[in-house]
Amino acid sequence: MGYMKKLIINFVLFTILFLPAAGQRKIVNLPDLPGYVTLKCDFHLHTVFSDGSVWPTVRIGEAFRDGLDAIAITDHLEYTPKKDYIPVNHNAAWEIVQGVAKEYDIIMVHGAEITRSMPPGHLNALFIQDANLLAVDSIWDVFKAAREQGAFLLWNHPGWKSQQPDGIPRMYEIHERLIKSGWLNGIEFFNNNEYYPLVLTFCKTHDLAVFCNSDNHGNISETYTKPEYTNRPMTLVFAKERSHDSLREAMFAGRTLACFKDIIAGKEEYAKPFFYQCISIGKPYFENARNIYFQITNNSDIPFTLVNGPAGAPGTINLAANTVTRVALNKRVTAPLIYDVKNVIIGENEVLKAELKY
Amino acid sequence: MGYMKKLIINFVLFTILFLPAAGQRKIVNLPDLPGYVTLKCDFHLHTVFSDGSVWPTVRIGEAFRDGLDAIAITDHLEYTPKKDYIPVNHNAAWEIVQGVAKEYDIIMVHGAEITRSMPPGHLNALFIQDANLLAVDSIWDVFKAAREQGAFLLWNHPGWKSQQPDGIPRMYEIHERLIKSGWLNGIEFFNNNEYYPLVLTFCKTHDLAVFCNSDNHGNISETYTKPEYTNRPMTLVFAKERSHDSLREAMFAGRTLACFKDIIAGKEEYAKPFFYQCISIGKPYFENARNIYFQITNNSDIPFTLVNGPAGAPGTINLAANTVTRVALNKRVTAPLIYDVKNVIIGENEVLKAELKY
Amino acid sequence: MGYMKKLIINFVLFTILFLPAAGQRKIVNLPDLPGYVTLKCDFHLHTVFSDGSVWPTVRIGEAFRDGLDAIAITDHLEYTPKKDYIPVNHNAAWEIVQGVAKEYDIIMVHGAEITRSMPPGHLNALFIQDANLLAVDSIWDVFKAAREQGAFLLWNHPGWKSQQPDGIPRMYEIHERLIKSGWLNGIEFFNNNEYYPLVLTFCKTHDLAVFCNSDNHGNISETYTKPEYTNRPMTLVFAKERSHDSLREAMFAGRTLACFKDIIAGKEEYAKPFFYQCISIGKPYFENARNIYFQITNNSDIPFTLVNGPAGAPGTINLAANTVTRVALNKRVTAPLIYDVKNVIIGENEVLKAELKY
Amino acid sequence: MGYMKKLIINFVLFTILFLPAAGQRKIVNLPDLPGYVTLKCDFHLHTVFSDGSVWPTVRIGEAFRDGLDAIAITDHLEYTPKKDYIPVNHNAAWEIVQGVAKEYDIIMVHGAEITRSMPPGHLNALFIQDANLLAVDSIWDVFKAAREQGAFLLWNHPGWKSQQPDGIPRMYEIHERLIKSGWLNGIEFFNNNEYYPLVLTFCKTHDLAVFCNSDNHGNISETYTKPEYTNRPMTLVFAKERSHDSLREAMFAGRTLACFKDIIAGKEEYAKPFFYQCISIGKPYFENARNIYFQITNNSDIPFTLVNGPAGAPGTINLAANTVTRVALNKRVTAPLIYDVKNVIIGENEVLKAELKY
Repeated sequence: MGYMKKLIINFVLFTILFLPAAGQRKIVNLPDLPGYVTLKCDFHLHTVFSDGSVWPTVRIGEAFRDGLDAIAITDHLEYTPKKDYIPVNHNAAWEIVQGVAKEYDIIMVHGAEITRSMPPGHLNALFIQDANLLAVDSIWDVFKAAREQGAFLLWNHPGWKSQQPDGIPRMYEIHERLIKSGWLNGIEFFNNNEYYPLVLTFCKTHDLAVFCNSDNHGNISETYTKPEYTNRPMTLVFAKERSHDSLREAMFAGRTLACFKDIIAGKEEYAKPFFYQCISIGKPYFENARNIYFQITNNSDIPFTLVNGPAGAPGTINLAANTVTRVALNKRVTAPLIYDVKNVIIGENEVLKAELKY
Repeated sequence: MGYMKKLIINFVLFTILFLPAAGQRKIVNLPDLPGYVTLKCDFHLHTVFSDGSVWPTVRIGEAFRDGLDAIAITDHLEYTPKKDYIPVNHNAAWEIVQGVAKEYDIIMVHGAEITRSMPPGHLNALFIQDANLLAVDSIWDVFKAAREQGAFLLWNHPGWKSQQPDGIPRMYEIHERLIKSGWLNGIEFFNNNEYYPLVLTFCKTHDLAVFCNSDNHGNISETYTKPEYTNRPMTLVFAKERSHDSLREAMFAGRTLACFKDIIAGKEEYAKPFFYQCISIGKPYFENARNIYFQITNNSDIPFTLVNGPAGAPGTINLAANTVTRVALNKRVTAPLIYDVKNVIIGENEVLKAELKY
Repeated sequence: MGYMKKLIINFVLFTILFLPAAGQRKIVNLPDLPGYVTLKCDFHLHTVFSDGSVWPTVRIGEAFRDGLDAIAITDHLEYTPKKDYIPVNHNAAWEIVQGVAKEYDIIMVHGAEITRSMPPGHLNALFIQDANLLAVDSIWDVFKAAREQGAFLLWNHPGWKSQQPDGIPRMYEIHERLIKSGWLNGIEFFNNNEYYPLVLTFCKTHDLAVFCNSDNHGNISETYTKPEYTNRPMTLVFAKERSHDSLREAMFAGRTLACFKDIIAGKEEYAKPFFYQCISIGKPYFENARNIYFQITNNSDIPFTLVNGPAGAPGTINLAANTVTRVALNKRVTAPLIYDVKNVIIGENEVLKAELKY
Repeated sequence: MGYMKKLIINFVLFTILFLPAAGQRKIVNLPDLPGYVTLKCDFHLHTVFSDGSVWPTVRIGEAFRDGLDAIAITDHLEYTPKKDYIPVNHNAAWEIVQGVAKEYDIIMVHGAEITRSMPPGHLNALFIQDANLLAVDSIWDVFKAAREQGAFLLWNHPGWKSQQPDGIPRMYEIHERLIKSGWLNGIEFFNNNEYYPLVLTFCKTHDLAVFCNSDNHGNISETYTKPEYTNRPMTLVFAKERSHDSLREAMFAGRTLACFKDIIAGKEEYAKPFFYQCISIGKPYFENARNIYFQITNNSDIPFTLVNGPAGAPGTINLAANTVTRVALNKRVTAPLIYDVKNVIIGENEVLKAELKY
């Protein structure tokens, strides 16, 4: 067709213009840990290649805009409701995003979602090479195919009510067997806006990395609307450097935290230094007969709520995100200022204790 | 595969949850005209079936949320860059949206975008029955196929700089021939956020209906972000009733206005009553030695800017959208309060004149 | 001083520009009742003439901008912490606002806050003529002075924890005596963002009008920030017409509702027709094998939450403010669609029951 | 009065609650300069003690919330329209704020606005000790009184149209005489949202410090509404440390920049390092056949617009505030990446030139 040549010229500009969310990149204000760079990641995303409603490159545009470092597209292996219009190819999304991911400096993790009834429910295989090899019937054949590709296996939404009607995650025999084999590596504490405290017990008992993913099927900006949501759900990974291989090493080493809305969840080992990197406490700047005054700067996107302060001190201190909070402390208070950080969850029923030293 | 049965049960809920933007429907605050209902429409939208990045049902969800009455999905006939992954079927989007459009009460207009170099450029064929029949080489064969299906032919973005580098719409011989045959029915004044004043001259000279469409390829909410944009680009169609056939009749009869941001454009015949339906002027409520005071209620989403008032009266009156504006009028002003409504465009270089009678 | 003359000329423009919030007036989207116009009012406001931080004209500017019809400035009679800088004159605010209130079409109610320990606590005397006559020691002398001026007596924040530590309003002997005399006319259900359900029982038992006031000391826009708050706290008064005297008649007749955030509270007699004026239910527009579909338009600024629907129908229906909600109703449901309107409170433990007839 | 004692107890809590804007303090994201701390200041504010509408403590609450370091309340000496209600005392605001300023760590500069017809127009006397001594008739007596107190004299809004109808600042003889005496120290480039480019020439020629002040009479949050305005107008002062005396030293030394909306204005000596402190340019992270890709981080609240790039490079680069911008640079570009920083104004007709070194 003769007109096609001209069309191609016309569409060069076209294609650039419609590149997804190609504008500017948010600075997610979350600190690094000493010795590590904090990578902001979402390892659970869908596209039109399973039951999502967007083209794969949209996920790159969103990740760039939202200030993420790494993502995985994890379309369902066993659920492809658009197959009448889109022939099944579990590697298609991965192929499609390669060029644009590099241009936007997003680390791509090759993934797929194993989508079974409970047990074992849904699991993401991450860091695979060929998703089509995982599209086999027997679940242990799937696990084996994943394992042979060096996959990191992540248990998704273990308390999802469609599969676990009481909403409480439960370890079935198959999960225990996976763990015993060393084949299960991570578990979602947050899936979208739902979270499961019990997961923190599983993480401790079975040495699993904690995760927080969006599991997004539509588009991120409509799911986590501004200004209600500062950031989308993110798994924070503490990597030696910002690279695909460092990310992988850190995940297998379990150096992660879950982070969504005002909640940080995970091992105290990472949650504690993370909290202290977020805040800084100024020297007292004034005192009068009654009080001394000092300021706490929360230089992070996470608002912290400190509760159960010592007698005479403010019972609750709200450290709003990216602001300075002024504390008027009664001079009679001599006890150390130890608070429960209500929104930094380090166990099923345990929050971080932090001391404010001014 | 035995697990499939269980999966299907699991996914019933799933599918409902991920229906696009299934929440609530905006009330677009734009008045009806006497004798007509004002249908809010977007006749130019893309999906993954050409170079868009969303699944067709997303367009229904968006239209519902945005308070539209009717849309057309108009994927390119000649430009299908995703064909390696999605086999070409120009009716696919139309088939896919049928059920959900009915459940969400969105009037669907079957359409396709004829996508050629200039001339003739890009044209939407609307109210067709089978888009695949339009995928033929010769442009006049396309027009004929459209015509045989009773199509309404809409000339898209006539001043698009990729095809018309000076940005000024130009009538080529082919357009004149189309017009002479009575085959060209409408033309875009607004395409996305770009508009072409000269189009109003074309509309008058050649009796074309004026349009305003988004031509969206990504998602609407990221293109027209809140609160900057109250509404997306809309073609207002003044129909005898809210139905597919009434919509068609009104469009062929040319009863339309273009509406985006603060701009209303089109024939004075519709723009004038539309403006007066938007505002109401109260009786004076107070006077002192110097002024009389009255209020103008703008009960619409369009902010109106009145300029060039008579000597002594306020030179400019801003009637913000959905608010009441208070006017303090010097008592010495005796001239009628005739203003230019700067943002109601009724000709290439002409705006509506309106009189405020309090 | 010679330079003064020139200064005065310079400041003409100056003074106009700094008139408080002189821009445009919000349309508060709340319906009238059949036979009555709904006046939006705030009868509890402070200024620098007691312990507020703004000049009285600021209250007019705010009321205009916020779409109120009537306000009362009610500075404390007994608490004037700025008296070292501002000589005490309880009528000063009233004098100062006269001109600007008329120019902005705000109905002013002359008021003052009687500010005593509990009992009787704080009470606003409204519709007075001379506040200075109320500045006397004996509380019954104050009441008498108010009464002689035809005052409407309003009991403020009866459950305020500074005076009623358990937060529960309590009728003391003095209140009962006031009621017996017919001297107590209204009571605050809402004071700022605090409300007292028990007040509805007092209203019924003692025939008191229900109120909702801001009690604002700073500025309204910083207290009720957008977009969290659509409207400030408002007492809705159902008056025969929009005038000072009609307002007074309606208040003494008890035709009021309290309205803040998503809550409407008061007598069923007014709450019920008010709710039905807010919503309209469309004819079913589609049905399939499973469901019939219809829409409910909530044409008001109040989001309504319908709960406890009949078996098979949606358990909860959220009618967001100023939007259309789509209902998919299972065709097997034959019971009338009676819901509890969770946020329309008509008794201490009672909400409005409403039937949806489509 | 016996009830007064109880009242005082009741009002302790009251008073604390109504302290102006006592919440949290914004982190204004503007960098320090090497060797200096950047103090964010507003040296032009009004209260009810002249023609403003707020109590003086409101200004402290606003400054705290907005992240300012220092303010001056500068009520008019010669214009006191509220004197019928508030006896004239030009030191009243200063007295009133002392305690709360210390508790909120705001550096107060004692000031007053000399308010005359043009010439000399309006001037702020800053760092004075007794404003009442400046309330004398003869303008030179005022200047002398200010001088004797060690005042810093600031020329306000030199192009204010009420005094300079063409809007262009003009040096009258009295200004030249002031300058010759070394008595004029600063001049406003920005007053509220109005600015005067010619001021930069005055600054250079006469060695005046540049200023940007709000001149606010109402309240700051309604004047500079979010999200349109990230910050209010601010004079940036580069001080050796955060203290009253360092602030004074820096101002007399002329180490200031004007900062409002997206505009930075002042001497290149400060504007240039300020710009380079705001941005950081990353190493190239990817290249393909056509482009190399790198990122520019703008770690400040100021959006910078770079224009007039070298041939082949992007003509315009928008560095949105607090975001990362991705640059795709054609590999054929070999010229240094020198741009005009359109919104960093260093002369009447001159903007900063900056080179991007990646």
